[in-house]
This record gives sequence, C-alpha cells and structure tokens, in this order.
Amino acid sequence: MTLINSQFLKVVKDEVGSKIEHRVNIFKTLNPDVSLIRLDSGDVVRPLPPCAVNALVKASKEMGNASTFKGRAPAQGYSFLIEAIAKHDFRSRKIKIDTDEIFINDGSKEDISGIGDILCRDNRVGVIDPVFQTYVESNVIGNRAGELGDSGQWSHVIYLKSGKETGFMPEFPVVRPDVIYLCYPNDPTGCVMTKPVLKSWVDYAIKNKILLLFDATYEAFITDPDIPHSIYEIKGARRVAIEFRSFSKSAGFTGLHCGYTVIPNDIEGYSFSAESSARLNTLWMRRQTIKSYAPSYIIQCAAASLYTEEGRREIRDNVNYYMENASVLRQALQRAGFNFWGGENSPYLWVESPTGSSWDLFDRLLNTCHILSSPGERFGPRGKGFVRLSAFANQSKVILAASRLSELDM
Amino acid sequence: MTLINSQFLKVVKDEVGSKIEHRVNIFKTLNPDVSLIRLDSGDVVRPLPPCAVNALVKASKEMGNASTFKGRAPAQGYSFLIEAIAKHDFRSRKIKIDTDEIFINDGSKEDISGIGDILCRDNRVGVIDPVFQTYVESNVIGNRAGELGDSGQWSHVIYLKSGKETGFMPEFPVVRPDVIYLCYPNDPTGCVMTKPVLKSWVDYAIKNKILLLFDATYEAFITDPDIPHSIYEIKGARRVAIEFRSFSKSAGFTGLHCGYTVIPNDIEGYSFSAESSARLNTLWMRRQTIKSYAPSYIIQCAAASLYTEEGRREIRDNVNYYMENASVLRQALQRAGFNFWGGENSPYLWVESPTGSSWDLFDRLLNTCHILSSPGERFGPRGKGFVRLSAFANQSKVILAASRLSELDM
Repeated sequence: MTLINSQFLKVVKDEVGSKIEHRVNIFKTLNPDVSLIRLDSGDVVRPLPPCAVNALVKASKEMGNASTFKGRAPAQGYSFLIEAIAKHDFRSRKIKIDTDEIFINDGSKEDISGIGDILCRDNRVGVIDPVFQTYVESNVIGNRAGELGDSGQWSHVIYLKSGKETGFMPEFPVVRPDVIYLCYPNDPTGCVMTKPVLKSWVDYAIKNKILLLFDATYEAFITDPDIPHSIYEIKGARRVAIEFRSFSKSAGFTGLHCGYTVIPNDIEGYSFSAESSARLNTLWMRRQTIKSYAPSYIIQCAAASLYTEEGRREIRDNVNYYMENASVLRQALQRAGFNFWGGENSPYLWVESPTGSSWDLFDRLLNTCHILSSPGERFGPRGKGFVRLSAFANQSKVILAASRLSELDM
Repeated sequence: MTLINSQFLKVVKDEVGSKIEHRVNIFKTLNPDVSLIRLDSGDVVRPLPPCAVNALVKASKEMGNASTFKGRAPAQGYSFLIEAIAKHDFRSRKIKIDTDEIFINDGSKEDISGIGDILCRDNRVGVIDPVFQTYVESNVIGNRAGELGDSGQWSHVIYLKSGKETGFMPEFPVVRPDVIYLCYPNDPTGCVMTKPVLKSWVDYAIKNKILLLFDATYEAFITDPDIPHSIYEIKGARRVAIEFRSFSKSAGFTGLHCGYTVIPNDIEGYSFSAESSARLNTLWMRRQTIKSYAPSYIIQCAAASLYTEEGRREIRDNVNYYMENASVLRQALQRAGFNFWGGENSPYLWVESPTGSSWDLFDRLLNTCHILSSPGERFGPRGKGFVRLSAFANQSKVILAASRLSELDM
C-alpha cells in the first residue's frame, strides 16, 4: 500500500480561493454583460520587451543549427548570464557576489519552495503574517508547520507580528526561529524596509545564528533611492542571507520563467549533532544536479538581453508603466478616503476595509466597481480586514477602476 | 544555528565522477593533440527539428505582442499540448488517458525526483541495480535510503537483482517495496521489457499494492513492434503506475526541457494510519501549484509542434540517426567479440569488460581508441564490470569510434 505524504491533506483545499470563485460566479450570473477589471493578479499583462523577443528568436534559430546547437546547460546557468547579473545587479551597487554564488532558475517560486530540501526538517520557520503563501505551504508539505489552529496559524510556524501600527514592519519574535522569510518590497502589503531596519534584521540574524531567506522579487519597483535593492547592501548579510530574484515582474517573464538565487559561500549550516558543517552553496549545487536543470539556453539568452542598455531601458519602461498604474490607484484611494499602504515602491496596494472585514470590501469592489481584488485572507489570517490591489493591469482599465474607486462611499 | 538536511552529506562527493575526471586529465596531459570521441553522454548533439524552431520563433513573436502575449501558463500545462499528447501518445495505441491525468513539466528529471514530495518518507523504495542514479539520489536526500554500505548499496533501498543471466531483467524482490522504479528502454543497459514481462510486474504491483514509477524517457527508440511504449498498454496499470515521458532525447530537447508525467485518477494513496486516502493525481496537482510552474508557452508550443505530421517525421529522422549510430557500434562490438546488450531498441549499449573490471575497459577505450565511455559504477555497484556506450554523438565520430573498436584486441 503506497503511503502518501499526509501533510498534503492539510493544504489540499483552497478555501479562500473557493470563496472568491463562488462570489465571482454569482456576480457573473447576475451580470452576464459586465466585464470585470482584474486587480487581483500577480501576473503581468505587458508583452515581453523587444530585446527579449529578439534574443529568443536569435537563440531559437541557433538551436536549429548543428554548429550552434546547445544541449544541456551548465547546472548553475550559462556564464554569460551569471556574469551580467554579478556586474549589473551587484557590482554596480558595490556588492561583491562571486559568479559561483549565483544559480539561475526556472522562476523564483521553484527555489523559494525548494530551498527546504537542503535544510533539516527540525528547523523552525518564521514568517511575517500576512505573507506570500508559498513560504508557508512549502513548509506544510515539507512537514515543518505542525497543525493548523483555529486562528488559521500553524502550530510550529513562528509568526512575526506585523500590523498597521508598525506600518507592517515585522517585530522581532519572542521565540527564536532557525530560518526567517523576508520579502521586500513586500507582497502583499507593498511596504519596503529602509536600510536601518533591514540592518537590524541582519544583525539580529547574525547574533542569533538565523538563516534569512530574502525574497527580492519586486526590487525593480523601488523608486526611493534610499531603499536597499539587495540584502547584501547590508554588511554581514553574506554570512546569513540567501536572496531570491526574478525577471517575472520587472521584465514580464511570468510566461517564460527565469530568476536566480544567490547563496554566498560564507553561509555554513550544521548537521543535527553539530559534528559536521557544510556550505549551503555546496549543498544547493548538489541539489540542483540531482533534482533540477538550469533554464533553457533560449530563456537564459532572453534574460541576458535585459542587461544590455536597450534591455535596461525597456525594463524601466515596463516598471514605469505599472508604477503609473499604482500611482493612479493611490490617488483614487486617497480621494475615497481609504487607509492604505504600498504602491510607492511596489506594484501592490494594501487597502484597509472600513468595516474591518476583507469580504465586505471585496464584495463592495466587486459589485459596485466591478473590480476583482484579493481578500487579505489569501495571505494568511492576519490579512483579515484588508484587500490587495495589484497594478499589473492595462492602464486604460486601471484608469476606469480608479474613477469608480474614487467615487466609492464606504 | 541553521541545521542542514544532513542526508546531503552522504551524496556530496561524486567519487566515480572524480575518478573519471582524474583519468581524462592524465590522458589530456599526455595527449594534448588528441581529440576524444565522447560516447559517455546522455546529451544529444543534433539540432532542434525545424518544426520546433519555427514554433519557438512564432511563439516568441506572439509574446512580444500585447494582443497575443501569454503570462502564467495553466498549472497543468496548455490544453493544446495536453490534447496532442492524449491523442498521439495514448489514444493512437488504444490507451485511455484523460487530459486531467497529464502534467507538462520542465524535463522529466524534475518530476522523477520531485514525485517523492507527495509520498510518505516511510515508503520503502525498490530499484534495479544498475540504475539511473537520480532514482537513488533523490531518495537519499529525501531520507528514504538509509546508510551507504561497503557494497555501495543503501541499507534501506531494496535492490532488484538484475544481471546478465536474466538479460538484465529484474527479479521480484524477497522483501516487498512500497514503490518500485522501472525504466524501459533501460538506462544504462539498453534492455527492453516485453509485454508479458511488463504484465508480470503490473500484476505483481496490483497484488502487492505497490506503486510503479515507470520511466519511459527512451520509448521513441523502440523499433520492435511487440515492445510496449507505455506501461498503460498493460491492463490494470492505471491503478498502480505513474509514467514519465520526455521530449529530451527523441526531439533533442535537452537544452529546452520539456516532458510530461501521467498520473491516472485511479491511483489512491493512504495516510500512515490508513484512515484517509487521496488520489495521487490531486496531491500532485497541489504540489505543482505550491512548488512549480508548467514550462513556458514558447516551449509548450515547440513540444506541440512535434505532434504535427512534419514534427513526427522530423522526430523519426532524429531517432533513426541515433539508432544508425547504435547499429554501427553494435557491429563493431560484435566484430571485436564483446558481450553486450542494448542498442536495438535503445540508444545505449551495455558492454561487458572481458577482465571483469569496468575500469580496465574504460582505460582501454580511452587510451587505445580515444573513446570516452561511462564506467558501470556510475549506475550503481552492480554496474561493476560493464561500461555504457551512448549513440548520442555525431555519426562521423561514431564511425571512427567503431573502426577503432572493431580492431580492439582485449
């Protein structure tokens, strides 16, 4: 009899998803001719930048020619892409990241959820709440989360308190986790960490021997020059932090999948009895050779094209487009008198429901404004009372959404 | 202090790989002007078929246009590809596989190593020896393998006896495993299972409630019309077998990465206390949404192009090219008087070393014929005494290798 990983039974139902679907179905039945404006998505709508398309076409043709065909990619990724990343994303900010510390991947979700493979199951995990649910769910199925309590929180996960009182900045936990996930600019709140705050977390991690998993997926959306783009801008971070980056949102690669993970050689991990230690970088390299591949040559070529002068300009245009959307939404929310966070250094806006119920605001936006939003419960129990609006939408629709939003009388 | 998954410490060193590297380095130092013929690789050398290149170029251009841009793919894959697979790979052989039973992936290695995510850690795993090492290594890091013994076998893995006496067909094990990996056409031995033999394994699995993980990566290389291409050609297999397929070898996709996994809805798994059960299909679907993505639109378009009339012809040409190589190598081995298996329905040839030592034959091929082979130990301890030759090479080099091989006097 084949035994299953019964942890899966704990996450097999997506209750919030079903609740949203139910409401949307009713709306569509009652309003068959109305088209909804989707501001609920983390997926992009703008096409790939021309540099990436050109690179894909060129590389595809190379793959069709015996003299330029490429079979298996090097396990860590092609050096032309790794070199471009090291130069433009790190050396340009005076950060020293060696090329053997960068692993190209098929999209950051795979590595964020896969990193648990190299960590002991007994590590206790700390997350902010609300949070991107992959951090939690990958630990549920990895048997690190314990049981789901009535509060919606998992018994073995350490939740870092983070509410509107602190502008959604997390507080240091009472019980020490072994691993902490941080995501800035944050999904879903859109908040960012200043350099002093990020430094306090790096210092805390060094002092308490904690591994930080820093998700910088949205760094390209930072507009404020004082906000760090990489955790490695903080001294000492090389000893305690892994960073995840992605081309998904900045360059519209959600349909291509490419990102990278930085694992500095300075991070050591220990076996349970502490009698052996190993570099996490070495373990991850081995994990990749057993379980994964670097992305295809053509997609790595597309990613490398983003670092050319033309590519960087096209990414800026892309980011600016979405940030204009965010600005339009901000102004509308202000006019309507909402409390909200984000949208300045992030494509996400986190809006407080005047009644304290996410679902009230979700329903109001759906039925009055014909806007689909993400209820805060999608991001954990502490998301209750908020909805997330996303700037990843067509500008004409965002302008229409904004005009309806600004007239909303809650 | 961050704790590591200390199972990794057991596989961090690749001793066979180091031994090969050492020998090749010495050869290159002594023979700086000699170019080696690589017959050691599972990677392909022929360019992508024109249909795939055309599909990639067309889809890349669509991605650059707002009206045809595609963001995130459906978690299970695009229906245009899934439908083509269901029709051509299964319905054409009178096998009923529903579209919701097919999961498109980024290359079959990711799913073969990832399938353990949905299975209980306490399942005992059975493998043939010699075997593709990903089956074993993914279970070592998944903490199902136990300790490595002096024999080179893992204490908790059940090895199915499979030697030259039985033509490398496995024998039913004495201790019952919960999960058994089968791979036919086999890597490394190149042997295939006839329908009656495969049926005996399906019947055994049904009777003993065992999950079969059937790796059909090399099915396109089958030339004998009586050899099954899919385990689902056997009645009852839908209740016990997951099948892994890949476009890597047949269509030269090792540099693109695309394959698929079939998980029939009939396979149930049980929680440890057997109080709950769940379809493996449902668990895998959830696993994909948490940990993975379907491959990019452009690569799924390339895969779908392989099912057009033109695409099927191009794949046949590709496969024929490599099978001609295999035939050339077979003839040379016969002339030289070697005992060997495979190369008839498989791109691999499994050659017995006349001295009983893989390394003797490896060294002889290297130093006398300037051929790089894979010593059998690469595939587990029972690979000792054999080397694998691969037909994935340029034909002119294979012909040169064959002429040297046929004159070899062991």
